[in-house]
Amino acid sequence: MAETFVIAQGGGPTAVINQTVVGATLEAMKRYPGCRVLGALHGVRGIRDGRFVTLSDLTETELRRIAATPGAALGSTRDKPDAAYCEKIMKGLRAVGADAFVNIGGNDTSGTQAILRDASGGGMTFMHAPKTIDNDLMENDHTPGFISAGEMVAGAFLSVDLDFRALPGVYVGIVMGRHAGFLTAAAAAWRLDEESGPHLVYVPERAFERARFIEDVKATLARHGRCLVAMSEGVSDAEGRSLVETLVPAEMQERDAHGNIKLSGTDLGQAIERILAEDLAGQRARVDTFGYLPRGNIATISETDAREAFDAGAFAVASVEKGDGSVALQFDGGQTVCRLVELDAVAGKTRHMPDDYLLAGENRLSAAGLAYLDRLLPRRYDPAKPFV
Amino acid sequence: MAETFVIAQGGGPTAVINQTVVGATLEAMKRYPGCRVLGALHGVRGIRDGRFVTLSDLTETELRRIAATPGAALGSTRDKPDAAYCEKIMKGLRAVGADAFVNIGGNDTSGTQAILRDASGGGMTFMHAPKTIDNDLMENDHTPGFISAGEMVAGAFLSVDLDFRALPGVYVGIVMGRHAGFLTAAAAAWRLDEESGPHLVYVPERAFERARFIEDVKATLARHGRCLVAMSEGVSDAEGRSLVETLVPAEMQERDAHGNIKLSGTDLGQAIERILAEDLAGQRARVDTFGYLPRGNIATISETDAREAFDAGAFAVASVEKGDGSVALQFDGGQTVCRLVELDAVAGKTRHMPDDYLLAGENRLSAAGLAYLDRLLPRRYDPAKPFV
Repeated sequence: MAETFVIAQGGGPTAVINQTVVGATLEAMKRYPGCRVLGALHGVRGIRDGRFVTLSDLTETELRRIAATPGAALGSTRDKPDAAYCEKIMKGLRAVGADAFVNIGGNDTSGTQAILRDASGGGMTFMHAPKTIDNDLMENDHTPGFISAGEMVAGAFLSVDLDFRALPGVYVGIVMGRHAGFLTAAAAAWRLDEESGPHLVYVPERAFERARFIEDVKATLARHGRCLVAMSEGVSDAEGRSLVETLVPAEMQERDAHGNIKLSGTDLGQAIERILAEDLAGQRARVDTFGYLPRGNIATISETDAREAFDAGAFAVASVEKGDGSVALQFDGGQTVCRLVELDAVAGKTRHMPDDYLLAGENRLSAAGLAYLDRLLPRRYDPAKPFV
Repeated sequence: MAETFVIAQGGGPTAVINQTVVGATLEAMKRYPGCRVLGALHGVRGIRDGRFVTLSDLTETELRRIAATPGAALGSTRDKPDAAYCEKIMKGLRAVGADAFVNIGGNDTSGTQAILRDASGGGMTFMHAPKTIDNDLMENDHTPGFISAGEMVAGAFLSVDLDFRALPGVYVGIVMGRHAGFLTAAAAAWRLDEESGPHLVYVPERAFERARFIEDVKATLARHGRCLVAMSEGVSDAEGRSLVETLVPAEMQERDAHGNIKLSGTDLGQAIERILAEDLAGQRARVDTFGYLPRGNIATISETDAREAFDAGAFAVASVEKGDGSVALQFDGGQTVCRLVELDAVAGKTRHMPDDYLLAGENRLSAAGLAYLDRLLPRRYDPAKPFV
């Protein structure tokens, strides 16, 4: 009989991650009357430092309001715990008498749960609930946070395409995504017709070649009079080196403690602007870095995404007595369902966009890719076709 | 008795400029049964080249659908007609037997109308209907397109502020605006409380100093643990040189035919990233270029903005028998009303953000500035306050 739950959030916030916190909290309060649900502030760091809020002291009205708020209400962290850090987390969990720890996040977060499970020596349940706009978790059809972020990107490209019909040119939108191109591909979800942008989609799963890029842009300009490009910040060359590494002068590159190069920011956009200015001199070309705008955008929260995020949290708590695991959103052919999978099936792994979501040898989505987007991102707007 | 109307769109598209086209068209069809309303493709260029669509052949249902679509359905242009070009436009207008020409756009577009009026020798009415997300037209309280773009910027900053509460750092969002800071200031419209970002607002109306900027960021980090900055792409130094000119290497600068330096794009963002990396080494800092995302965003079309844009077009046609002029959206103390003003009161002039909208000597909005935003951009969302 679980009496104390600890809930934490890890990695980048999303538009709906607070739904998962509240789904877990309300499910615990329903199943285990009188239980305590503690929210750790700034993820495992809060557990290590003994910083908690008591979520079970809040009313359902207060909790529902937090659920509807983008961002990570408990705060987040990018700490990757080593053995010593894990010992401190375990100590912190024992100090509050935790029976179960629900950690909400992406593959790093599921990895943390696997490490803690191995270090715990039993007596405590470690659950991972999925969250990532990157949509890159194994075992999942899609992940909470992706649909809302995808709707922001789809709506933005639909809008900028209409803008560039009126004042033609080349437009490149740089979208978050280090290893997986799903969010960048979402730019194509709401294309009006074959004329519509994005006309070219560059994702980390396909090698980028400068000469080929320029050829494709020229061909698109010849065909449509404008060229809209959706590009992942993580696009790489044939050797797997990110474009930022290959195009940005080394002294301008920024790396984190793990040696990962910083991809967000304007570096890639700047490099692409230079390429276009050099290879397509005189051609009007504009580059925007979407960066943080899709991640937790309050204007594009999807009700489906919100509901699935809430359900994932509730399912994590409902599954506690089955033992450690990771909640996965799977598609049963008709609808999305929550299933409990092994932590190790998700921990530290990355799901890439299936190769057949792009046309063979082309930087355009295939019927399979568009069908996936249609299922997850049904068209929300039906604009008229412009005269130009 | 007007029998033939020509309507054109100029400059950057917006989320609601098509409402103005349709407002003018439906008003003409109502007031002048049997009249012809011609839409010029790509602005005055379409008149010069004889490229038109007959808007009065469309049903009201078809027209209303176009009205609800962002972008410029007729296409737009940035051509600035000289005397010879004007003669060709006049020839094109006479060729279709135009009685009145309604040109929808910003101060360049109103300038074109003034030039045509002077060249016409009478017999034709030249009307300007307002449009600009920059909100920089004289005689106007605000302009069609600004509210929708402002809501996108306000919602984005509200969202990114929630994101950065969870994972603290410095965030800079670069917003369109060459001479006027209204759209950048809109970032502050939906702040939750005194803790909320944007904490600093840099607009073209206030000189930018690198040392002062870094001081302000440091002080904000010390006070709030994070620092969100809204910055206009047109921010300039004390000598009035744009930051892009002063910070970006000359060989990397791009200028248009008129010698105006290109401000949109990643140049300024890149320069700001470098400043932060150099002067605040080790501090997490991210820069996004909003660019085209607020301009015609289909996800943030304001009903008020749409209605006012429609009314401005209808009022332009309703005023044709009064003679040449520019439609201005004015505030009568209670509500927004359309009034007809002299073309020369608007043509080629720029309205700047009132100095008292910012606190004296500070890069923060004053009560007066916030009151203006509250009136135009009433809070659309009411998120819960995060625990961190």
